[in-house]
Amino acid sequence: MHPRTGLPVVGMVGAGQLARMTHQAAIALGQSLRILAVSPDDGAALVAADVLIGDHTDLAALRKLADGAEVVTFDHEHVPPEHLRALAAEGITVYPGPDALIHAQDKQVMREKLTALGAPVPRWAPVASVEDVVRFAGDAGTIVAKATRGGYDGRGVWMIDDAEQARELLDAGTPLIVEERVPLVRELAAVVARSPFGQVAAWPVVETVQRDGINVEVIAPAPGLSEERAVEAQELAIRLASELGVVGVLAVELFETPDGILVNELAMRPHNSAHWTIEGSRTSQFEQHVRAVLDYPLGATGLTAPYVVMANLLGGDVTPPTPGTYPRSDAHHRPPHEMTLDERLHHMFAAEPGVKVHLYGKELRPGRKVGHVTALGDDLDDVRRRARRAVHWLREGEPS
Amino acid sequence: MHPRTGLPVVGMVGAGQLARMTHQAAIALGQSLRILAVSPDDGAALVAADVLIGDHTDLAALRKLADGAEVVTFDHEHVPPEHLRALAAEGITVYPGPDALIHAQDKQVMREKLTALGAPVPRWAPVASVEDVVRFAGDAGTIVAKATRGGYDGRGVWMIDDAEQARELLDAGTPLIVEERVPLVRELAAVVARSPFGQVAAWPVVETVQRDGINVEVIAPAPGLSEERAVEAQELAIRLASELGVVGVLAVELFETPDGILVNELAMRPHNSAHWTIEGSRTSQFEQHVRAVLDYPLGATGLTAPYVVMANLLGGDVTPPTPGTYPRSDAHHRPPHEMTLDERLHHMFAAEPGVKVHLYGKELRPGRKVGHVTALGDDLDDVRRRARRAVHWLREGEPS
Repeated sequence: MHPRTGLPVVGMVGAGQLARMTHQAAIALGQSLRILAVSPDDGAALVAADVLIGDHTDLAALRKLADGAEVVTFDHEHVPPEHLRALAAEGITVYPGPDALIHAQDKQVMREKLTALGAPVPRWAPVASVEDVVRFAGDAGTIVAKATRGGYDGRGVWMIDDAEQARELLDAGTPLIVEERVPLVRELAAVVARSPFGQVAAWPVVETVQRDGINVEVIAPAPGLSEERAVEAQELAIRLASELGVVGVLAVELFETPDGILVNELAMRPHNSAHWTIEGSRTSQFEQHVRAVLDYPLGATGLTAPYVVMANLLGGDVTPPTPGTYPRSDAHHRPPHEMTLDERLHHMFAAEPGVKVHLYGKELRPGRKVGHVTALGDDLDDVRRRARRAVHWLREGEPS
Repeated sequence: MHPRTGLPVVGMVGAGQLARMTHQAAIALGQSLRILAVSPDDGAALVAADVLIGDHTDLAALRKLADGAEVVTFDHEHVPPEHLRALAAEGITVYPGPDALIHAQDKQVMREKLTALGAPVPRWAPVASVEDVVRFAGDAGTIVAKATRGGYDGRGVWMIDDAEQARELLDAGTPLIVEERVPLVRELAAVVARSPFGQVAAWPVVETVQRDGINVEVIAPAPGLSEERAVEAQELAIRLASELGVVGVLAVELFETPDGILVNELAMRPHNSAHWTIEGSRTSQFEQHVRAVLDYPLGATGLTAPYVVMANLLGGDVTPPTPGTYPRSDAHHRPPHEMTLDERLHHMFAAEPGVKVHLYGKELRPGRKVGHVTALGDDLDDVRRRARRAVHWLREGEPS
């Protein structure tokens, strides 16, 4: 319990943007999130009071985080499972627990479990040798190889056309599974939260748009998705949350194919596909995650507007000079490559007064995910346009 | 400029709930608010990374806050004007500046200025002696005496029926003004924000409900207010923001009388009468204040629901025991006086899943303002009921 507020304390492993936004939400609940950061410059460490510096692979650091916290939860999945089991064995409450989290840490364990549960997944196989890959591929042409651990944002996924590529990966010591390349209509995500009491709350199913394997846009609710398929996706996510014993937010990334939905990945923490909930839902995924891990009743998940679009801000080709000068002087006359992030923000706000911005405290380097924007409204085309325009200003320093 | 983000840094004097909620909003803008706190236990100091401990009456502490910040702004009005003038003379950007802020610090200066501007105010007079009070009162019966400085939440305001009461106040050395007691229909507030560039943005005019001089409820928009009077109030607030040179949020507290509106008080910072904007407006007053003092273009101020009601959480007669036990065991069977804040929160969330809560990190002592809740919806009666029910759970540990 926090000595001052009398409220239970949440410890979060990791101090990236998810911890940063969870901290924002936690403040409203009277909380002061405890954060385990690798560096004092991490996004969440820049803005939170109770920050421990230490590595998530160091059991002693994890114990220190847990000391004085009622529950330990996560900004990422990279904590070694054996450490989580050690904490749990010491009586520390870890949510999601190690037996649930392993399904978000290890793709082979996840695929095996989902197959056993009869959940829809792409055709897949474990891989022990190049022969396994060749046998799986048959005459399928291109197949997909995935590292069982550690991949994200397109990393750890390879399109495989011949056995030689698979051999290179295996020789490099990468544990793999292989999957069919599904006839993709689009990608969806069904995000839910579950409390230890067993309450589950679902947000509307969203469409996620990727570029180079990285999510660039999320549309809520997924346009044109039939009620039947939306309910099917939500029920699947709810069933998985219960069957796997998830506590906290569970994001189920889905492939929509001509024949139905298939589970792509699982994440057991606040997830990029639900950032839109900050403004777009009565309860944000960050608040919901905190409520869930503290076993509070969950919040209402209704939308605040007919359409909500989130666009990720990835650093563009031009890195803004930093630091800027202040007060701004001749920002309006500068070429994009001379315009600081502060000046770009100024222009973006002028162009899009209704778009909300979330910056993660990172420098705007090419390709790096450094923030996101959210637009809301009645007209989907207009909402998407506004979100894209806002991101373009921030990324390129000029209008789209 | 922040060395890591390349963004300008906002320093805020004071670390109460206004700084706490401003910090939440600032995080989204890529900011890391610098806060001058009296104690490390102050509400904002509990949740922010960059906290200096020092007193707002100590010029050296103020200089330290300003060092490395592009702008200094306020959680409260208690900084001595001469210190602010000293900072401004040293080239430090202070928003609102001392020449504006004085109108929120000194009621006599405010009344003189508003009278000179022709703004509608109650009949009033400065007081140098008991004779001034007697002359002003005439045969009016009860009049109102106000301390020119330092009053808030009903403190510093007295109903005066005879000269003896005024003599006691004057003998105690309290600088006073006197005002007529207006025939009050209700209280309203017009809240706006203004940037140094001169852009102004207004939220809808709200009704504020007081009990014992303390605001307990805010209804947005003010029910039944004519369009004409709403526009009059907004235009008045915009004019005052411009005429007084306010930068940041300006809250104009108004009396509605049968004959029209009169200005009661001014506040030049985020204000209790606009807490509802966190969920109820596209741009919260806290985000808007940060945007204004950084001279960013201001955000859209539209409502997110037809009605928004904020209810303040004041500690009730029963102080909850603290710290609680965790996990919660028999909370459902405990009498209210044994129920911790955490358990009350649990019950409140179960009863009102759509109500949003904001706790300020303070202990729940009788009469103390420790948080607020916000409800939104189409049906005003229902929205008010939900907000009241939520507050009742938290305050009393039982349903209303």
